[in-house]
Amino acid sequence: MLNDEYYMRLALQLAEKTLGQTGINPVVGCVIVKEGRIVGLGSHLQRGSHHAEVNALLMAGKEAEGGTAYVTLEPCSYFGRTPPCADRLVAEKISRVVVACTDPNPQVAGNGIEKLRGHGIRVDVGVLEQEARELNEMFNKFIVSRLPFVTLKSATTLDGKIAAKSGDSKWISGEASRAQVHMLRHRHQAIMVGVDTVIADDPLLTARLEVAAIQPVRLVVDSKLRIPLDSRVVKDQETKTIVLTTNQASIEQMLRLNALGVEVIKCGEGPRVDLRKAMAIMTEREIGSILLEGGSRLNGAMLEAGLVDKIVLFLAPKIVGGADAPGAFALQGFDLMSDAIALERVNVERVGNDCCITGYPRLERRQEACSPES
Amino acid sequence: MLNDEYYMRLALQLAEKTLGQTGINPVVGCVIVKEGRIVGLGSHLQRGSHHAEVNALLMAGKEAEGGTAYVTLEPCSYFGRTPPCADRLVAEKISRVVVACTDPNPQVAGNGIEKLRGHGIRVDVGVLEQEARELNEMFNKFIVSRLPFVTLKSATTLDGKIAAKSGDSKWISGEASRAQVHMLRHRHQAIMVGVDTVIADDPLLTARLEVAAIQPVRLVVDSKLRIPLDSRVVKDQETKTIVLTTNQASIEQMLRLNALGVEVIKCGEGPRVDLRKAMAIMTEREIGSILLEGGSRLNGAMLEAGLVDKIVLFLAPKIVGGADAPGAFALQGFDLMSDAIALERVNVERVGNDCCITGYPRLERRQEACSPES
Repeated sequence: MLNDEYYMRLALQLAEKTLGQTGINPVVGCVIVKEGRIVGLGSHLQRGSHHAEVNALLMAGKEAEGGTAYVTLEPCSYFGRTPPCADRLVAEKISRVVVACTDPNPQVAGNGIEKLRGHGIRVDVGVLEQEARELNEMFNKFIVSRLPFVTLKSATTLDGKIAAKSGDSKWISGEASRAQVHMLRHRHQAIMVGVDTVIADDPLLTARLEVAAIQPVRLVVDSKLRIPLDSRVVKDQETKTIVLTTNQASIEQMLRLNALGVEVIKCGEGPRVDLRKAMAIMTEREIGSILLEGGSRLNGAMLEAGLVDKIVLFLAPKIVGGADAPGAFALQGFDLMSDAIALERVNVERVGNDCCITGYPRLERRQEACSPES
Repeated sequence: MLNDEYYMRLALQLAEKTLGQTGINPVVGCVIVKEGRIVGLGSHLQRGSHHAEVNALLMAGKEAEGGTAYVTLEPCSYFGRTPPCADRLVAEKISRVVVACTDPNPQVAGNGIEKLRGHGIRVDVGVLEQEARELNEMFNKFIVSRLPFVTLKSATTLDGKIAAKSGDSKWISGEASRAQVHMLRHRHQAIMVGVDTVIADDPLLTARLEVAAIQPVRLVVDSKLRIPLDSRVVKDQETKTIVLTTNQASIEQMLRLNALGVEVIKCGEGPRVDLRKAMAIMTEREIGSILLEGGSRLNGAMLEAGLVDKIVLFLAPKIVGGADAPGAFALQGFDLMSDAIALERVNVERVGNDCCITGYPRLERRQEACSPES
C-alpha cells in the first residue's frame, strides 16, 4: 500500500544496510518523495560525511521543493562535523518531513523537529518508530551513557559448554551461525577477547564474509601481558590490535608489543583489568560498539560489571558433557533462581541447525551490579 | 482442496488427540468417505477396544459398502486383542483404502495391505506418510525394539543450569513451558525421576491441566531406598508409584513401602540400578513410553546407556551462574567436540518467553554407548 510506511520502510532499509560503517554515528536513511515519485534517496555513509538528508537532497536537486522527506531519525539541529540538516531541509523548501523516531542525542532530542515546525514545515513523528529505534540500539546507548554498546556473543552446546573438557571447541555451532558471527563483527567497531582465548585458539578475529567486510579493532584483555608475540592477532596487519592491561604490566613486554605495532593501554592498578575504565577509554577512542567474544571468565566479569547490553547466544543441538568443560559465563552465581540475570525482549531464531537466542540483560540487575562504582 | 490429503489430515487429527490414551498401542484415525460425503469417523480409543477402522465402520453402517477408508496406519492383519481390521474392511465391502504409513509391527509390516489387495481392494500408501509416522514415534520404537520410548525433558537457564548453586529451582521456565510439560506427562505412560529429585523437591509428578488428564505411573530410581516415606509420590494415591532399586536394598524398607502401596522392583545386583534391566521390566509391564524428568545424574546415566530416544529442552532466557550449580546432564564428557552427542531432526520453537528445542540423539552414538551390554 502506498502510504507513509511504504516510503519509511525503504528509508529503514537504506539505513540498515550501512550498519557497521558509520562508527559512533547512527545509521540513517532518507527518501524524498514528490507528487507520487521518489525524487531522492540517501544514507549517512560515514562519520564526517553527508548526513542521509543531504545525500537525498543532493539527488533530488530542485525537485525537493514542495516534497516530503522521510527520515529514519530526527534531523539534526546543531553544527557538528556537518551543518544542521534541519536548516538544510528548510533551505531546500521541503514542505513535509516524516520522522520515524526522535534523536536521543541530548544535543538534538526534539530540537530538530521544533526547528522544522518553527519554519512552517509539517512534521509527523512515529512512523515505524520501534524498528527505527532498534536499528540504532548501539548509538542510542552510546550517545546517552558515553559507554560503548557491548554485545556478548557465544556459542554453546545444549549443556551450556563452550568447549569439551579437553578444551577442544571446533566446531560447536554450524556454518550458518558462524557466518552470522562474521556479520556481527562487520557491524561492531571492536571485538573483545581475553588473552586465554588468544593462547588457546590463536584466532584471527577478523570479519570474513563472501565480500570484503569492515575489520573491527581487536581488543585483548590481558592483565599480565601474557599474549604470545607470535599470535595471529599480533602478527596480522589487517586491522589494529589493542591490548588492555594494568599498571602492573612489564614495560619490556609493552615495548616489544609496541614494536610489533600493537598498542597497549593500561586500565587501572591491577591485578585485574578495570573493565569500566577500559570501556571509558574505548569511548575516548570513539569506539561505540564492542562484540564480546570472551571465554567464561571475561564474559562473566563483563556481565557482573553490568557492561553487557545484549546477548547473542548460538545453541548447537549437541551434548558434550564434562563437569569441568567450560561454560559461557563464569559467574559467582545467585542463590535464588528468581535472582538470575533475566533477558528482556527475547528473540528466538533458527539458524541452520542451531538456535539463536538474543536478549538484553535486565537493566535494574545491571545497575545493581555496578552500584559500587557508580 | 478436496483430495486424499484432505481426508487423511482429519484422520491424523483424530489420531493425534488420542495420544496418551492407547497405552503401548499406536494412535490411529480413520475416515470413511462415500460419494463425496464423510460417512464414518473413528479413532482407536483404548488398548483392547475397537481399532479406528472398526469404530468408523460402525458409524458408517451400510454406507461403508463401496466407500473409501482413510487410515493413518496400515490395517492390522492378525488376531490380537481384536480380530484383524483388514478382514473387516473386506467384509464391509470397502472398495478403496488409503493408508498413510505401513505398520512397523513385525506381525503386520505390509501383510495388512497385501491382504486387502488380495481381495481386490485398491490400496494407496504414503499420503501424509511422514506426519503419520512421527505421530507414532513411541509405538514405532517400542514395537520393534521392545524397549520403552524415553523422552528426556529438562528446563535449563541459558548457562545450562537446572538449579541455582543453592539448589533453588523455582522457577526456571515460564508458565507456558510448564503447561507443556503437563501435556507431555499426559502423553507418556510413566514419569521417571531419581530419588534425589524426590528428596530435594518433593514433587507430586502428576499431569495437571485445565481438564482431567491421564496420570502416568511414577517411577523413582532409588538404589538404596532412600525415598522418604512421607514424600508426596508415596502418599498421593492419584496414580501408582514404582521404586526401581537393586538387590542391595533393605527388605525392611521394601516392606514399609509396600505397606504404603508402593511397588518396589529390583533391577540388578547394584550398587546402581541397572537401567537397561529397568527398561526391560517396564516393557514386561506394558509401559511403552517414559518421560524422564531426572536430575543431572539420572539424565546423564540414561543418555550414556543409550536409552534416551528424544530430548525436549526448555531454555529460559536467564543466566544464574555458579560453577557448582547443576546442569541438565552429568556426563563424563567427550574430549572432542566432534564426538558430542548430536541431536537429529532438531526443532526450535518459542514457548512463551522460553525456547523449546527438541531432537533425537543420533543412533550410532547411542548404539556405541550401549555396546558393552548389547
